[in-house]
Amino acid sequence: MNENIILSSRVRLARNVDGVPFKGINSASIATRALNALREQGSYMMHSINSLTGLEQTRLVERHLISKELIDCQGSAIIRDDNKVSVMVGEEDHIREQCILPGLHLREAYAELREIDRAIGKEFKFAFNPSFGYLTSCLTNIGTGMRASVMMFLPALALTDSIGRCIGGITRLNMAVRGVYGEGSKAEGYVYQISNQKTLGISENDIVASVENVATHMVESELKAREALMQVDPEGLRDKILRSYGIICNCYTMSKSEFMELIAFVKLGVYYNILSCSDHAALEKIITDVQPASLCLGQGRRLDVGERDKVRASICAKIQQIVCRIGG
Amino acid sequence: MNENIILSSRVRLARNVDGVPFKGINSASIATRALNALREQGSYMMHSINSLTGLEQTRLVERHLISKELIDCQGSAIIRDDNKVSVMVGEEDHIREQCILPGLHLREAYAELREIDRAIGKEFKFAFNPSFGYLTSCLTNIGTGMRASVMMFLPALALTDSIGRCIGGITRLNMAVRGVYGEGSKAEGYVYQISNQKTLGISENDIVASVENVATHMVESELKAREALMQVDPEGLRDKILRSYGIICNCYTMSKSEFMELIAFVKLGVYYNILSCSDHAALEKIITDVQPASLCLGQGRRLDVGERDKVRASICAKIQQIVCRIGG
Repeated sequence: MNENIILSSRVRLARNVDGVPFKGINSASIATRALNALREQGSYMMHSINSLTGLEQTRLVERHLISKELIDCQGSAIIRDDNKVSVMVGEEDHIREQCILPGLHLREAYAELREIDRAIGKEFKFAFNPSFGYLTSCLTNIGTGMRASVMMFLPALALTDSIGRCIGGITRLNMAVRGVYGEGSKAEGYVYQISNQKTLGISENDIVASVENVATHMVESELKAREALMQVDPEGLRDKILRSYGIICNCYTMSKSEFMELIAFVKLGVYYNILSCSDHAALEKIITDVQPASLCLGQGRRLDVGERDKVRASICAKIQQIVCRIGG
Repeated sequence: MNENIILSSRVRLARNVDGVPFKGINSASIATRALNALREQGSYMMHSINSLTGLEQTRLVERHLISKELIDCQGSAIIRDDNKVSVMVGEEDHIREQCILPGLHLREAYAELREIDRAIGKEFKFAFNPSFGYLTSCLTNIGTGMRASVMMFLPALALTDSIGRCIGGITRLNMAVRGVYGEGSKAEGYVYQISNQKTLGISENDIVASVENVATHMVESELKAREALMQVDPEGLRDKILRSYGIICNCYTMSKSEFMELIAFVKLGVYYNILSCSDHAALEKIITDVQPASLCLGQGRRLDVGERDKVRASICAKIQQIVCRIGG
């Protein structure tokens, strides 16, 4: 049930090479060494940002494998074949290692990341201060260099106008709440990212535990809100869900923001057993595939907004093969 | 192709019994005699309005078998089993005979009605003046006592804002344009009724011919408007049609006015070969079945608006069994 609310768990560690200035590094050379260090850890590919097309760069952002900032910095990315581990080189810090797993699996993500960090740490001497811990470009990351985050789908909290109060509570616990593409982005499709603010004076395991705690608490709040939402106007909600399903499966053209809105109601419909989904992974893949860059690369060329909206609608039509109405 | 635009053709004749005052007649006794006169003409049933429930009365109006006025007058109706011929007794005139046929078949409707009129005319001496013709309660019907009308589905003329100009032109030809339930009703679902204004100094055949002419001309105008509508914004129109189809097949609750709007786009979709319809009669039956009184009688009891809107949506779901998307 958590999977319907906690979409994914991500842990990242910020690392810098000792004795090298934070800014203006040769990212390609550090990335090559890091790739080499990961040889035994699985199958990785290195990508220099400037060797990728703009669409390929954006697709990596859409899939949360790199940050928008890495594109601005023209850094490099090392990405594991299963798209669960990536290492950014030359972003704000020299090295940012991350592991992203579906559902609530922060501990597993951190466990996996420790192996990655250990392997890379054999190749580089990390900037480290015995009193502070890992040194980072921005003070907000100093200490553990860790950010643990969960991507949460919170439509009922948003639709019952409870999300503001929840965000207030979370912020007081030193957690940050952001939109789906990180800092400054809005919560499109009712997806919120919750992460630790504190990186100093707290252990990695405690960070993971604290984010896990908040996430678990938020799941409970969202579940209560879903119950309340259904009680307030059961027929209106059912109608909205079924219309969203009808439009998404049949439209000829659909903007990204409308898609994000309607797919949220389709997913709510699956939660409420108004709709049934035979393949959750396929549904999530469609959500990724209709993002602008992924969509263009799927067609093999850059498309303008009007063309994208039509291709998006044609991809949406596949939803009726995996999601269907329960009880007619 | 006309069938998609001219929904039905109706001819009615107003008759009064000689020597009987226009108002305050005993409609049951006249109706019994008229029913008797029709014995050889087919299988008829007589209904006293006050022996019917309110729902049964309204259903007869929804099916165009009686007028709202007959209910107010507490008259009687004699209805042929196939619902194509009905005789109202005790409305504005003593006797109003009508024949309604699908598509453009005014001549056939008039031919059929002449037989009915002849049979009833054997039973009664009609009020008739050699200079004026048949005498009627209202001067607007004097002479032939005939109103010939066609029910036309004119969405493209309405959506391209050309309907006003067309109505102006028709009015100058001494024709009346009304909504789907006659005088004073609005054109719900883009359905308009066009009929002759003139009943005096013109033969029955000329009335039929003149309405047929106007209808044929309107079909041409509507077809041109449909072409124009598709040229102005082909993708927007296709999207609107497919969304209407998606909503109508999937919603949980739907008002009558929204239904009339969306079904118009579904029918346009069939015209444009965006949708295909395997059974036009079944689609028209659904449109009749979701009208308020027919819908309640289908459920065997009076329903409030909220219940009706849900039952309507469940009937709408059947549309996907007869209408489907062309080319996915």
